[in-house]
Amino acid sequence: MDHRPEYLKKADALKPALRVQRVRPVSGLPAEAMAEGDSLLLDFGNHHVGHVTLKLNYTGSHPDAPVWLRLKFCESKRELNESVEGYKGWISRGWIQEEQVHVDVLPRALSLERRYAFRYLRVEVLAVSMKFRLTVEDAWVDSTTSADDSALAPFSGTPEEEAIDRVATRTLRGCMQDFFEDGPKRDRRLWLGDLRLQALTSYATFHGDALVRRCLYLFAAAANDDGQLTACLFTEPKLEGDDNWMADYALFFISTLKDYVEHTGDRETGRDLLPVALRQLELSESYFDPETQLVRDGNAKSLTREKQSDGPETRANMVDQSAFFIDWNLTLNKQAAGQAVWIYCARDALRLMELLDEAAGRQALEEKIEARSAAAVARLYDPARGLFLSGAERQVSWASQVWFALADVLPQEAARRALEAVAKEPEATIMVSPYMMHHYVDALYHVGCPDQARRVMLDYWGGMVKLGADTFFELYNPANPDESPYGSPIVNSYCHAWSCTPAYFLRGTQRKL
Amino acid sequence: MDHRPEYLKKADALKPALRVQRVRPVSGLPAEAMAEGDSLLLDFGNHHVGHVTLKLNYTGSHPDAPVWLRLKFCESKRELNESVEGYKGWISRGWIQEEQVHVDVLPRALSLERRYAFRYLRVEVLAVSMKFRLTVEDAWVDSTTSADDSALAPFSGTPEEEAIDRVATRTLRGCMQDFFEDGPKRDRRLWLGDLRLQALTSYATFHGDALVRRCLYLFAAAANDDGQLTACLFTEPKLEGDDNWMADYALFFISTLKDYVEHTGDRETGRDLLPVALRQLELSESYFDPETQLVRDGNAKSLTREKQSDGPETRANMVDQSAFFIDWNLTLNKQAAGQAVWIYCARDALRLMELLDEAAGRQALEEKIEARSAAAVARLYDPARGLFLSGAERQVSWASQVWFALADVLPQEAARRALEAVAKEPEATIMVSPYMMHHYVDALYHVGCPDQARRVMLDYWGGMVKLGADTFFELYNPANPDESPYGSPIVNSYCHAWSCTPAYFLRGTQRKL
Repeated sequence: MDHRPEYLKKADALKPALRVQRVRPVSGLPAEAMAEGDSLLLDFGNHHVGHVTLKLNYTGSHPDAPVWLRLKFCESKRELNESVEGYKGWISRGWIQEEQVHVDVLPRALSLERRYAFRYLRVEVLAVSMKFRLTVEDAWVDSTTSADDSALAPFSGTPEEEAIDRVATRTLRGCMQDFFEDGPKRDRRLWLGDLRLQALTSYATFHGDALVRRCLYLFAAAANDDGQLTACLFTEPKLEGDDNWMADYALFFISTLKDYVEHTGDRETGRDLLPVALRQLELSESYFDPETQLVRDGNAKSLTREKQSDGPETRANMVDQSAFFIDWNLTLNKQAAGQAVWIYCARDALRLMELLDEAAGRQALEEKIEARSAAAVARLYDPARGLFLSGAERQVSWASQVWFALADVLPQEAARRALEAVAKEPEATIMVSPYMMHHYVDALYHVGCPDQARRVMLDYWGGMVKLGADTFFELYNPANPDESPYGSPIVNSYCHAWSCTPAYFLRGTQRKL
Repeated sequence: MDHRPEYLKKADALKPALRVQRVRPVSGLPAEAMAEGDSLLLDFGNHHVGHVTLKLNYTGSHPDAPVWLRLKFCESKRELNESVEGYKGWISRGWIQEEQVHVDVLPRALSLERRYAFRYLRVEVLAVSMKFRLTVEDAWVDSTTSADDSALAPFSGTPEEEAIDRVATRTLRGCMQDFFEDGPKRDRRLWLGDLRLQALTSYATFHGDALVRRCLYLFAAAANDDGQLTACLFTEPKLEGDDNWMADYALFFISTLKDYVEHTGDRETGRDLLPVALRQLELSESYFDPETQLVRDGNAKSLTREKQSDGPETRANMVDQSAFFIDWNLTLNKQAAGQAVWIYCARDALRLMELLDEAAGRQALEEKIEARSAAAVARLYDPARGLFLSGAERQVSWASQVWFALADVLPQEAARRALEAVAKEPEATIMVSPYMMHHYVDALYHVGCPDQARRVMLDYWGGMVKLGADTFFELYNPANPDESPYGSPIVNSYCHAWSCTPAYFLRGTQRKL
């Protein structure tokens, strides 16, 4: 029996009303009347997601020709100097928030149809005739979110912590729309792995429990005929799963549902969606070598191959079907981390079954976790070096140590030593995304190093704050803040879901769980 | 007492309902699915003025990024190869019919907000992601006009004549919208001198009498506080006269009203607007030197000066305030033609007064016409050469001979000889616009040379037909068909009111009057 239609019905019923706040620029207006070639920079004071209106008028003679404008919406000032013509990167140029508009009649309140994510708006006059000049009399954004600002408790900490919390909650707020978006500027999809982190942060901040529930139902409704969950999905014009399959993302449905039931006590949703969660475990069997009980090796190689081919467009294109994402590092061997993620999620499945008083299958799952944990320790762990190694190449990576720490495979002391040991390996494969950094911080808390966890968080996310971030970026390399994996900051996402978790750490929800 | 508000009320009441015809491309569809960089040329088979809808869809994976399109609307195929970036001419680039559009969700019926005048539409894919391709499933233009096609009688002539008539009526049809537009692509204003020719052609074709009446009231309502009529006006967002004043255009209100009353018998409108018409004559007194009873010289010089200065934007900028337009030839001395136009319009004023049984002032006006005709013959006509000369420079131009022929200053035989004589003057200042060519043809008929009139018309307008014209151009130089006074055909108007008059000549309305 296909439950997807009823899941979709439930998801639709949970579609939130958007809250709208009208916000005007903090600088840029009033502005001089503009001739051809002039431009105007409006600063809306903070990151906003919404619809913009410009009140346009003129001085001089009655306009005898249409006005032609270029409008450039930027999340970060870095984008202002980048040109769409100059952009040759492999992410679609379609994402660049730049419009050309003709206005036939003045005065006019020009309400743009599309939604933008931005703080800065540059209005550039590509054409006005000699007989008049253009004036921008007023401008505003109807800034939208489904987050409930009144649910956000004040946070007290050091000024540094308060700044990080402010930026983190702003990030989550911008991503909370009809669903938990990944990046409101340039990836307006719902991603499962990112949803997990957004949900955790939401419980600690805006309490968007209903939105989490909606998103769980959306994924359940978008499963393929085999019950497998997509890594991401679209809701417009109607619900459709993307043809991206990522092993870890599918498994995180279990963790996200477990967190949701644990946080809300909503057992009804838990029971309703438990079969979907457990189906992901069943499907994950294919990743394992039955002989070794290890996740099959070979992902890193396939990643490299994909990267060399022309134009991978998304994270999903970078990995084999049903392979693991882990981190956006193309040289990472994912066998070890994949093994650990599976164990982590399988443990969450056990916990979920306990919460829901589901006895069937628990014993078998416990045995499987034991066997695969033992296999990992026996075959991937090097006791002499105190490190997990990945793949035939025996790769040492940060990701492997982090995920095995979170998977509770070793005693806490040994897990801590692995995290210390990898820091002393200059050749260790590094972490490259805030998403992976989240798991590192989480692992440090988990192995009993809260001070170091806090330090890492303050250094990494605090580094973005020092760069003037209003929201946290999709990608951030402290050693090279202007780096873009796409070829230009013009397509970077400067407000990105998976970077919002400092508010979760700072507000201590994790500690309470 | 200010009658302008009541004139405006009458004009508003006459606002026509637009007739809409849905037209699909004759070639270009069905089209292949398009990747980035691909383009598609849709040919709608004829010139249209209206609103376009594109039905867009995709093949491949669900779109994971917005589609970014460039849409280029062209009246003539010549425009297709011109780029907006390359255009450096002095007419505002705002007129160029090129849009950039982002489409966030597919499928979509993309209905563009603006109206375009075009036959060809090039759809160019500036961006689609690697995961899908764009398809254009359908496209149509809701082609609008206020012309009543059912009022247009079939026209029989030679194939050449029928082709010219077809293009001429198509031209007028495209210009008949809420009012008689000058050029639906790139001069969506109501010009008085052009209205006169459109009205005459309309009587012979679509019988848009109510639209003529509306336009007369619009001009009357847009007069300045002194009662002077503007050369052109805007109706959006509300009625406003442009700050262009052209002596001949203001005087042509008289002729246009006279033609209207003569054609329709609508004496009520005639009586209502007669004061507005006669006021133009009063105001025109300032153009004359009381001593010589000639229009003051000096216009040609001022034109040259304007041309050297930066960026004249419109015809009106090219002439002194309250000077004459006559033709778009910057070296033309306009004293003689201006004198003749005044006499022509003053004669029409007399005729209008007769039609309306208005006796007061007729005697004085007749005397003034006599005096100024005599002054013209005495001081501007060279009996030895059989030519009118203009200005202190004694310039020989076609325009002077044409207008004195139409003004009935000489006996018909002498007027005919002047037209013959100017053709033998290689240095004579030439005619450069279809507007002036209309008056030449009209003058040839007027002096009793219908065969030559027909020949000129067939050669000139037929030349555009041979170039593939669907509608007649604003400007056409048979010696250099690609010439543009604006620096590029991309801003040429290929459907222009003042070029529609062959239908008036061919259908013989002029002969009947």
